[in-house]
Amino acid sequence: MLRKKTSVDSIDYEVAIIGAGVAGMTAAIYLKRAGINCCIIEKDYPGGQINLSTKVENYPGFVQSSGIELSEIIFSQLKKLDVKYINDEVIETKLKGKIKYIVFRNQIITCKKVIISTGRHSRRLDITNAKELVGKGISYCATCDGNLFSNQDVCVIGGGNSAFEEALYLSKICNKVYIVNRTNILRAEEIYLDRVREHSNIEIMYNSCVNELKTKDGVLNSIVLTNTIDKENIRELDVKCCFVSIGYEPNTNVFCEIKMDRNGYIFVDEKCMTNIEGVYAAGDVVKKKIFQLITAMNDGVICAYDCIEKLRINK
Amino acid sequence: MLRKKTSVDSIDYEVAIIGAGVAGMTAAIYLKRAGINCCIIEKDYPGGQINLSTKVENYPGFVQSSGIELSEIIFSQLKKLDVKYINDEVIETKLKGKIKYIVFRNQIITCKKVIISTGRHSRRLDITNAKELVGKGISYCATCDGNLFSNQDVCVIGGGNSAFEEALYLSKICNKVYIVNRTNILRAEEIYLDRVREHSNIEIMYNSCVNELKTKDGVLNSIVLTNTIDKENIRELDVKCCFVSIGYEPNTNVFCEIKMDRNGYIFVDEKCMTNIEGVYAAGDVVKKKIFQLITAMNDGVICAYDCIEKLRINK
Repeated sequence: MLRKKTSVDSIDYEVAIIGAGVAGMTAAIYLKRAGINCCIIEKDYPGGQINLSTKVENYPGFVQSSGIELSEIIFSQLKKLDVKYINDEVIETKLKGKIKYIVFRNQIITCKKVIISTGRHSRRLDITNAKELVGKGISYCATCDGNLFSNQDVCVIGGGNSAFEEALYLSKICNKVYIVNRTNILRAEEIYLDRVREHSNIEIMYNSCVNELKTKDGVLNSIVLTNTIDKENIRELDVKCCFVSIGYEPNTNVFCEIKMDRNGYIFVDEKCMTNIEGVYAAGDVVKKKIFQLITAMNDGVICAYDCIEKLRINK
Repeated sequence: MLRKKTSVDSIDYEVAIIGAGVAGMTAAIYLKRAGINCCIIEKDYPGGQINLSTKVENYPGFVQSSGIELSEIIFSQLKKLDVKYINDEVIETKLKGKIKYIVFRNQIITCKKVIISTGRHSRRLDITNAKELVGKGISYCATCDGNLFSNQDVCVIGGGNSAFEEALYLSKICNKVYIVNRTNILRAEEIYLDRVREHSNIEIMYNSCVNELKTKDGVLNSIVLTNTIDKENIRELDVKCCFVSIGYEPNTNVFCEIKMDRNGYIFVDEKCMTNIEGVYAAGDVVKKKIFQLITAMNDGVICAYDCIEKLRINK
């Protein structure tokens, strides 16, 4: 099936972008404006993780729009540029060699270059009504939503580096920050523990997990913590937001040829190229330190530039 | 004078950002939202180079706004966050050591960290009488001065994206627009070449450079072009204005301790830090390959993150 199309001249696209989050959409804007024949593939809706942000306040040029508004505008830019949009799920890829194959359930497309911008997803909080409270007291991003809870009490669920980072960030904005950790062992590095100890408004709740999310007028009003050892309800906290930070998982299952770390994040070089020539990765799917809108878009620009340069010299 | 303030506790700001272009403003948004005491210094208007763009089309989330509109919105975000804005010119800096000094004509400020985001300016045309003809037939900004030459013949000097943007802008106002390009290769993206081809009043002069600026009554009346290959005068054009778009020079005169390349662009590491601990550079002032809005903002985010991390552990 993968051998159906074999000539480089008959390929479908010069560049195929897999994933229409902000990294992929930014790459598409740059590629299309440079006259490159490209497509962008998305199995859900355009926007990715940003769609989960109630208000985007740290994107320059946007004053308090929602993540969905932002991603809709960016997608409208793609439509205006007439970028080919494929709303389908990739189930297999074959990326080594000059012709790259992207396989869907009912079609195969071929291309010269691939940009993987499939992003990652937060590990979800597994409690009744947690899903419907997203944006109403459940958040997966302190940098995005922290300011909405200034001078209020909040909690962070998780005990790793990112949970502690979230708590430290929130400690300067919020009145009180509880860190809710399942065990009495914290996974965060010592450096984070030291920092948290210096902040008197951060309290760590050990051996605790959230058992119930109580609402008032449809938004979170308090949480009930259970002791993970004796299973009794130990405390009710009047927090107005739970920042869930129990980790992320990159969406990289279909890229078995690509070099990743043990968690599935993709290794790239300074041009955002992976271990395979002509295959790039951009955005949250990349092994890196800072996961922000702008840094994701930056990856998109960088790999688009390299594609454009190489396609112009027919490499 | 520089020794007036010496205690780290009595410093004015945790971070001082020099230059309120998009890189500096982005850093300010991230720092202030993280609770850092910071200021941003600008000698002219907020926005920098982006203010010269008639239309911003490749910034995700913005559909055809002007550069000035974008920078005004970003500046409004800073005001909303209550970032301290210092509208003054830095004449000297002393950046080695734990306390950094920034010297103005009538004040000195002290800080722990400095972000240099002073950007760059258009390179000046190096021809006899080019300098005295600025405002009399030599311009560095079509958006600013184009209207003064409506229905006349003008030229744009340069072959990159910005030269083509200028030419397209002018083609709607002026009678005839010549693009004067040194070689037979254009650096502009395909989308600009396509658009220029659609405008019958734009003519590209390849392998050409301006050799002489002829005046009448003290203002430009015509230019003489030389062929860059055979060095002969090839044509005299009756243009009333030359819009110069031949590259840029970084604004780094007051940073004598910082390591730069021979053109004055600042070397930084992967955290955007310069050769001096605690001194960062972000945006177009940095030695790099891609000079885009997003890449400049990305630098701002990266150095803000490192400042935040280090200030939290009091380093």
